[in-house]
Amino acid sequence: MRRKLIVVSNRGPVLFGRGADGELTASRGGGGLATALRGLLAVHDVTWIASAISAVDRELAGDVRDESSRDGSPFRLRLVAHEEQAYDWYYNVVANPLLWFIQHYLWELPYTPGFERGVHTAWSEGYVAVNRAFAAAVLEELDREPGAAVFFHDYHLYLAPRFVREQRPEAPLLHFVHTPWPESDYWRVLPEEMRQAIHDGLLANDVVGFQTARWRANFVRSVADFLGHDADAESRAIVAPISVDAGEFDELALSPDVLAAEQEIVARRPEQLILRVDRTDPSKNIVRGFRALEVLLNEHPELLGSVGMLALLNPSRQEIPEYAEYLGAIQREARRVNDRFQQDGWTPIELHTDDDFVRSVAAYKQFDVLLVNAIFDGMNLVAKEAPLVNVRDGVLVHSENAGVHAELGEWALTVNPFDVEGQAEALHRALELDPGERRRRIEEIRSHVREHDVNAWIDRQISALDRMSAPSRR
Amino acid sequence: MRRKLIVVSNRGPVLFGRGADGELTASRGGGGLATALRGLLAVHDVTWIASAISAVDRELAGDVRDESSRDGSPFRLRLVAHEEQAYDWYYNVVANPLLWFIQHYLWELPYTPGFERGVHTAWSEGYVAVNRAFAAAVLEELDREPGAAVFFHDYHLYLAPRFVREQRPEAPLLHFVHTPWPESDYWRVLPEEMRQAIHDGLLANDVVGFQTARWRANFVRSVADFLGHDADAESRAIVAPISVDAGEFDELALSPDVLAAEQEIVARRPEQLILRVDRTDPSKNIVRGFRALEVLLNEHPELLGSVGMLALLNPSRQEIPEYAEYLGAIQREARRVNDRFQQDGWTPIELHTDDDFVRSVAAYKQFDVLLVNAIFDGMNLVAKEAPLVNVRDGVLVHSENAGVHAELGEWALTVNPFDVEGQAEALHRALELDPGERRRRIEEIRSHVREHDVNAWIDRQISALDRMSAPSRR
Repeated sequence: MRRKLIVVSNRGPVLFGRGADGELTASRGGGGLATALRGLLAVHDVTWIASAISAVDRELAGDVRDESSRDGSPFRLRLVAHEEQAYDWYYNVVANPLLWFIQHYLWELPYTPGFERGVHTAWSEGYVAVNRAFAAAVLEELDREPGAAVFFHDYHLYLAPRFVREQRPEAPLLHFVHTPWPESDYWRVLPEEMRQAIHDGLLANDVVGFQTARWRANFVRSVADFLGHDADAESRAIVAPISVDAGEFDELALSPDVLAAEQEIVARRPEQLILRVDRTDPSKNIVRGFRALEVLLNEHPELLGSVGMLALLNPSRQEIPEYAEYLGAIQREARRVNDRFQQDGWTPIELHTDDDFVRSVAAYKQFDVLLVNAIFDGMNLVAKEAPLVNVRDGVLVHSENAGVHAELGEWALTVNPFDVEGQAEALHRALELDPGERRRRIEEIRSHVREHDVNAWIDRQISALDRMSAPSRR
Repeated sequence: MRRKLIVVSNRGPVLFGRGADGELTASRGGGGLATALRGLLAVHDVTWIASAISAVDRELAGDVRDESSRDGSPFRLRLVAHEEQAYDWYYNVVANPLLWFIQHYLWELPYTPGFERGVHTAWSEGYVAVNRAFAAAVLEELDREPGAAVFFHDYHLYLAPRFVREQRPEAPLLHFVHTPWPESDYWRVLPEEMRQAIHDGLLANDVVGFQTARWRANFVRSVADFLGHDADAESRAIVAPISVDAGEFDELALSPDVLAAEQEIVARRPEQLILRVDRTDPSKNIVRGFRALEVLLNEHPELLGSVGMLALLNPSRQEIPEYAEYLGAIQREARRVNDRFQQDGWTPIELHTDDDFVRSVAAYKQFDVLLVNAIFDGMNLVAKEAPLVNVRDGVLVHSENAGVHAELGEWALTVNPFDVEGQAEALHRALELDPGERRRRIEEIRSHVREHDVNAWIDRQISALDRMSAPSRR
């Protein structure tokens, strides 16, 4: 049933610019979130509220624009222009790295983070202020469409639901948390005021969605720890694993651009190809992945020359020192492994650090082993996308701490992300796996993903919202 | 009631050496654990099993020696000599830093730890092997005294109880965990084999003691997560906060050595003295503590010249790189703050990095503010010891993540250990606290510690053991 939805996320589905003649151009926004949410547009009547990011975005902010998605679905877009300083604090100090690092257990606690006065300011005048601005935009849209449901997204927007709820006790509010939800001790890295506000803000929603039962259970416990057992997280927290639009990848796989990129990969590929596709985020565990390849090659010299890793890495958040340093560590480790082993036209690691989605899809088709060894990961969509189009019965090796493990675990080889030796062993086992077994596993993965697609993810949340926000329950 | 106890800990209560003429000398062993356990000797009939540490210890290993504690209580001591390589792996690779860093949330997960083949070897041929050697010694002592109860200690000995239980289904086994118990996600840093073995080993005990309800709750949950809900942690895990022997500190405070050391401190002390006494352990949060002092002095220039911090830091585990680096960071940060503010015979931070217990007790008497800002800490005995002998109605500022917070929280000022600004504010509030309020708070702390002393800690565990290991329950 078609619904009126106000979708709220930091990044919108398009990024505006201007062409050579000053005409407006719209490019597909970055980030897996925007991709996943495009599925909403085909099914529901959506008003999308997002931050104005580019200079042209800022010109267009405030008004509601009629837009349409790639497949022609219409939606309304409202961009919110934030004060530049506030946005920097919100985005580059609080959301990334502070909250992201907490939600993925990435801090080196003996040294970082440190809540200096400037961080407290970034919270109150950045994160709180931007959430208030989002809430104000939501309230205006609710005035226009009083029956609409509001669908918030991710760690940028934990406080906005409370600000909306204070003004609209009856509005149906839904929030989806795309990242892992850590346990209480790690939330306690945040000073009390912040962790309380985050938990309280999320509980202003009728429904809070998580990728897996594990993250949901952590949330139910941390709510009890911080807000008491009366805070009703148990009934409102649901599991709704995000997924992909299989049809989109079927189409993409056959597109001329992807076919051309695939030709290039085929021409250069080693006999057996290990693939990883990630943002250069410290949560993705790229350094240990290269080290695992090194251990594999050291322990199995018969693989020298015939096995290689293709690492397609999209540089991420380079304004944040931890991210800039991590990119350096990635490059250093790849260089070290290559210096050790490269020979006669064969290089163990082929590293690309640019954003090239077409090449990624081409590589999805060509892998023999897909390595997803994330330290922690809310879901990991690469693990769902790549098997859909793979033509070599490739094997999925994934981390027990990636959300996708809960769904695809029985058909993948599971690794502990800190266990380098264990990852080397899993890569070896994957390379040696019997062809029939490879086929059986990837077919199971494909049919699971096709059945549990992005529409199922949306439906599950909307029906939970209908159950929870029914007037009789208030 | 006097009981036959076999106490098992890595470090024993004495360390043997030889004097100039080759005669045997015995010095009081390091570590808070040995200190706390001395209380046992006065009350129970103890056979103590510990690792041979010094060269002379190793000569004496194997035999059971009749010893007596400082107050004349007799006990039997059995030292276990481990293969040197196995002991290094057990102690310097697995126990510290691996388990210690996990139990205090100290790893920088994007980079460390990494389970390379050598770490797996250190586990199986170091940690497992040393735990087996301890279990073998326990079994021999149980042959000698079949009615004895076995009392294991701490993170060095998680596996020994299972090895004993396999051979002695009826033996009463008790384990006390001196450190925090982290939540399941952080235990998952360990490969499955290791985390399962640790949880299984602890559950071989009849009773497992924790410092606080918070660590106990984390254990009950992690057992359910790793061993299933049938594993009976709920009934066997108890809370027994470790404590001190108040009489010992009353005596010490008046001893000539302490009085002499106190004179020196009085002669040099600033008007108001902030004290910290710690091992140089990354869990102790010494760097952020210096930074908090810097913020305090920057925001309250009227305190320049009249407030100073005395940091008595005992270098710890300097064979482990993370510890060596942390000592460097401590010295660098103290130097930086001193370089910024020092003037006319006044230095903001007076830093001592040597082990001088007498000077520590003298400083306990003289503080105006005691700072215990640990990142995580099982209990923190300094926070119990120092107020007992303090003569200035000093104020306790402590971390919400130190076990002692659960007992003394209402009479201390509580800080978030990552919140530098919050710590500076708490120090300021402590310095400004009304004298009557200072007195009231420290008196409450003193009477609590006197009532809940180390004997109460022992009694609580022994009676739980009697309840749980009664033959009718088996």
